[in-house]
Amino acid sequence: MPENNLKALRRMDFGYTLPYRTRWSDNDQYSHINNSIYYHLFDSIVNTYLIESCGQNPQKSPSIGLVVSSWCEFFAPISFPDILDLCLCVKKLGRSSVTYEIGVFKQGLDSPVAVGGYTHVFVDSQSRQSTAMSPAVRSGLEALLVTVTGKL
Amino acid sequence: MPENNLKALRRMDFGYTLPYRTRWSDNDQYSHINNSIYYHLFDSIVNTYLIESCGQNPQKSPSIGLVVSSWCEFFAPISFPDILDLCLCVKKLGRSSVTYEIGVFKQGLDSPVAVGGYTHVFVDSQSRQSTAMSPAVRSGLEALLVTVTGKL
Amino acid sequence: MPENNLKALRRMDFGYTLPYRTRWSDNDQYSHINNSIYYHLFDSIVNTYLIESCGQNPQKSPSIGLVVSSWCEFFAPISFPDILDLCLCVKKLGRSSVTYEIGVFKQGLDSPVAVGGYTHVFVDSQSRQSTAMSPAVRSGLEALLVTVTGKL
Amino acid sequence: MPENNLKALRRMDFGYTLPYRTRWSDNDQYSHINNSIYYHLFDSIVNTYLIESCGQNPQKSPSIGLVVSSWCEFFAPISFPDILDLCLCVKKLGRSSVTYEIGVFKQGLDSPVAVGGYTHVFVDSQSRQSTAMSPAVRSGLEALLVTVTGKL
Repeated sequence: MPENNLKALRRMDFGYTLPYRTRWSDNDQYSHINNSIYYHLFDSIVNTYLIESCGQNPQKSPSIGLVVSSWCEFFAPISFPDILDLCLCVKKLGRSSVTYEIGVFKQGLDSPVAVGGYTHVFVDSQSRQSTAMSPAVRSGLEALLVTVTGKL
Repeated sequence: MPENNLKALRRMDFGYTLPYRTRWSDNDQYSHINNSIYYHLFDSIVNTYLIESCGQNPQKSPSIGLVVSSWCEFFAPISFPDILDLCLCVKKLGRSSVTYEIGVFKQGLDSPVAVGGYTHVFVDSQSRQSTAMSPAVRSGLEALLVTVTGKL
Repeated sequence: MPENNLKALRRMDFGYTLPYRTRWSDNDQYSHINNSIYYHLFDSIVNTYLIESCGQNPQKSPSIGLVVSSWCEFFAPISFPDILDLCLCVKKLGRSSVTYEIGVFKQGLDSPVAVGGYTHVFVDSQSRQSTAMSPAVRSGLEALLVTVTGKL
Repeated sequence: MPENNLKALRRMDFGYTLPYRTRWSDNDQYSHINNSIYYHLFDSIVNTYLIESCGQNPQKSPSIGLVVSSWCEFFAPISFPDILDLCLCVKKLGRSSVTYEIGVFKQGLDSPVAVGGYTHVFVDSQSRQSTAMSPAVRSGLEALLVTVTGKL
């Protein structure tokens, strides 16, 4: 799933950015942020964007996104209390699914410390059967879609 | 352990404040921040203060603080993606122990959504035997000490 | 809230026990289980009991329990991959609230490594207003109620 | 990274199995185990195996494994208080790196609910430079190595 040269990505390659503080318990016994925590952060930026920029309401919207696959490549360790910039783009956009890519940057550094992503399949919130994403979600995600030339 | 009238505490009753974003997985199945998460946040503001304002280095300092008791009172639910202000003060300061109090405020609201705290006992990082905290830590913590009149 | 002599509690002082494995990320950078994790474990044994022994369904039951205060005392460190016994009793039982106490034991040791607890207030799952717990929940919790003599 | 037909994997395709309880806070607001939690579980079975079957000591061993990439495919939702079987095998074994695959099974079901994995690169615990894994670790991991025919 990951393409070549993820380390060369920069903040400007992504359309949406949020700063995020790390937490004490994010560090594992090797004193750096545990690999699993990056996925918690992916969920946080994706869902913040869906809620704040796509009109999504996790409790009330008729369709919700469920994760069907995820991945991450780790380039450099980070440690609490580092502050991060999470940067989000959309790599693929279908009728009922979307694939996100997230760059994790340490404030003060140009290169990402990790790049990963996941695919959401939208389902009916009650039946949990696959369904088309709403027009508002689709429109919001299109704004973050990277074209084949790699530009937004 | 908690005194009366914790709900009446305001941000200005604390000497140190950090803004913190919530995370998607902080919400439990009742769609609000799970009670356990507040303790992760307590650890985060306490240790950020120890590292950034008291010269503490969790990996290298000869003495480290271990939690011996903790508590929290919850007044109102909050939910991802709410942004929080964490506010820290020191309630008791001994030779080798310190008791913190933390107010959790939702940005935009005056009253705390939760107030809690814990007691750190400082121990030798190798032997894990109780020891005096370092002068730098003591000095940093004194700056946050609330007097009997409840003022910093 | 904690009474005297919590360290003297033994597994047989509690009416319900579950074994629980620790996880790699439970250890913080001091290489022992982080204090916040104990509260995740409290939630796990309480809710397992409510679901499996009290007919509670977190998604469908008309009333649900929300945590209004919690506390823990820590006596000895534990570390991944230690296996734990979580032991639950009920200290106070009201019409709409219940106070649990949980002993955390390391397999192979008699004394608890930590004892803590919390108070659930039952609320209507929709309005979130305080309400009486269901008869099934009340009956299940009574079975774990410790009497004034400290016996189940 | 994932090969074809992961859903067809069964417990007997893996050489090491541990039962694991889910926790209340593993469920997110959609009332199933959050995708990030699977990575916490991967770390838990891998490191339990390294510690208990390969003589690894995370605090004292001269070389430690750091995660450089990870992935997971999700096939079916699970929810607290489901009990899981985590099943581990080794897909690739080099001088200083190893790629694990983990199947997550719900007790009572034959098909995995998720399959994922990650690659550990062993580094010197002090310098954090790449180094060969120890003979004990190598020997322990060889015992879980799946051959080209897909058999242990």
